[in-house]
Amino acid sequence: MMPTAPRPLSPVLALDIGGANVKLADGVGYAANWPFPLWKHPKDLAEKITRCLAKAPSAESLVVTMTGELCDCFETRAEGVRSIVAATMEAAGDRSVSFYQTNGQFVSSGEATEHPLLAAASNWHALAMVAARYCETEPGLLIDVGSTTTDIIPLIASKEAAQGRTDTERMLSGELVYSGVERSPVCAVVSHLPLRGKDCPVAQEFFATTADAYLLLGELPENPADVNTADGKPFTCAAAHTRLARMICADRGIVSMHETLDFAESIRNTQVDRIEKAFRLVVAAMPVEPQTIVLSGHGEFLARRLLERLDLPLRIFSLTEEWGPVVSRCAPAHALALLALDALK
Amino acid sequence: MMPTAPRPLSPVLALDIGGANVKLADGVGYAANWPFPLWKHPKDLAEKITRCLAKAPSAESLVVTMTGELCDCFETRAEGVRSIVAATMEAAGDRSVSFYQTNGQFVSSGEATEHPLLAAASNWHALAMVAARYCETEPGLLIDVGSTTTDIIPLIASKEAAQGRTDTERMLSGELVYSGVERSPVCAVVSHLPLRGKDCPVAQEFFATTADAYLLLGELPENPADVNTADGKPFTCAAAHTRLARMICADRGIVSMHETLDFAESIRNTQVDRIEKAFRLVVAAMPVEPQTIVLSGHGEFLARRLLERLDLPLRIFSLTEEWGPVVSRCAPAHALALLALDALK
Repeated sequence: MMPTAPRPLSPVLALDIGGANVKLADGVGYAANWPFPLWKHPKDLAEKITRCLAKAPSAESLVVTMTGELCDCFETRAEGVRSIVAATMEAAGDRSVSFYQTNGQFVSSGEATEHPLLAAASNWHALAMVAARYCETEPGLLIDVGSTTTDIIPLIASKEAAQGRTDTERMLSGELVYSGVERSPVCAVVSHLPLRGKDCPVAQEFFATTADAYLLLGELPENPADVNTADGKPFTCAAAHTRLARMICADRGIVSMHETLDFAESIRNTQVDRIEKAFRLVVAAMPVEPQTIVLSGHGEFLARRLLERLDLPLRIFSLTEEWGPVVSRCAPAHALALLALDALK
Repeated sequence: MMPTAPRPLSPVLALDIGGANVKLADGVGYAANWPFPLWKHPKDLAEKITRCLAKAPSAESLVVTMTGELCDCFETRAEGVRSIVAATMEAAGDRSVSFYQTNGQFVSSGEATEHPLLAAASNWHALAMVAARYCETEPGLLIDVGSTTTDIIPLIASKEAAQGRTDTERMLSGELVYSGVERSPVCAVVSHLPLRGKDCPVAQEFFATTADAYLLLGELPENPADVNTADGKPFTCAAAHTRLARMICADRGIVSMHETLDFAESIRNTQVDRIEKAFRLVVAAMPVEPQTIVLSGHGEFLARRLLERLDLPLRIFSLTEEWGPVVSRCAPAHALALLALDALK
């Protein structure tokens, strides 16, 4: 057996604490994504982080970014930030910890708690700052399509140049589209689905998610062990067929797999429409049109659909290709680790 | 102390087994609504029905209608019907039991299981058949606005005259609008909310329901004991303010109660728009325009908004006024009991 090359040791470990996942990366190749429904178990966060850290390479310093403060277990985002900061400090033990703010600064837990809205929803900023390195001379745009949200961030002169800072401001500017390729409820994405030459209204009910559509379209792989679906049944094509049929109060006896494939295409087209609208809003606010597009996120396939549709002469970088799929799945954590490593230099 | 008048004894008890509630009525004044999230606990249905029956007046015969078969705990609607029939038979003990079909027939458990799609989603039919009694000579329309769905059923010559039989057919014809005044996710109802002169996209996430909007608008009463909300926090104005603010990734520090009242009005207008569209579709398919409107459901206030907007010369009957709010909350069960009592004559 060949010995595997030892992984280089990094002095930092970055954590991205979201509402549904805790992601870790060390900037030199290690990355891990641990599902954790924070909104259901806010009190277990410190324990979860402790377990994640135990499995990760050891590092003297932790750097932290978050989006989990929006979870509905928290009354306000300030309360969410305080709670996430406290859980991280509890889990960190002797390690030094700093929190990343949307102004690009690393601060102490005390400062993060004092200015919670600067630490809130900060992970897009870390990713954009690193993506901006691909746009030194000509303006560009980061399109990061994730499971729940999509970020569209202007990149100018090696820096992010977003109009909005908070999530609300970013939704208004088009820089945040709160729609993604896995967790978005189908009833939020589409109001109708095509059925035998007609448009059938959909049930306003959490019966299926966008992941079901992309599974049928071959963009996401089957995973029978994953029951983190709308009905708690496996993430398989057969179960996705059932879930999508239920969106029009039907079942697999009434609507064929082929017909739910039409549903899936309609869901995809509607999501691309929405992202296109936001893209145009963001580009219209830029001083110059972007020349480069940096793609990121495991919903990259959706951004590529948009670019095909736009058919513009753009240079395209894919962080999934640059970093590989495992690291790319934790792109904001990896980006944050890179920023922290630079800060240490 | 004055003795209370003894309640008349009815030979029948009607059950309406939905996805979120079990409702009972005996047709002579008794009605009860027991919350029961069937989709979460499908195996506990027989026990739940047993407990409901123990609290209800005794009756020799049970008659049953259902909508719970669409719950996502069941793979197909046929499986759902079989499961609900079996649970009811288990709970019924020695009582005689019949199941109501969308063709107006009462059948045995064996026949219901054999033709599951006739027993599925049958409660609208019972209500429409009774509502039709208000429309003997001139055509009319039943508008029943519930917590999750809205039915718009043509009534001609004392009978329901719907185009669709199954839920899917009824959604296509406009006779079923899968949107209601309590459980509908806000992200399914609206894509944007008005914020300071702009339209802010909403998060495609289950952060708030239509009940939050109607609570702020004074249409539904506060109930601190009710935590059957999107975030599991109480059904109070303060908590609804927080939930609605979260729809645009904000909180009560960023968006005032007054501003979320604008959200609530926008949600109401959009729901009335959708019901108006369906109303026009249903009316267009009728041979003659309706002269009478029969209103039902605890979302009657929404139907009245629509009628104000339409401003047509219509006679209006309210089942809430005719039957009182308690019986009206269980209107399909009460209607089914009335049909069963007639059948016994």
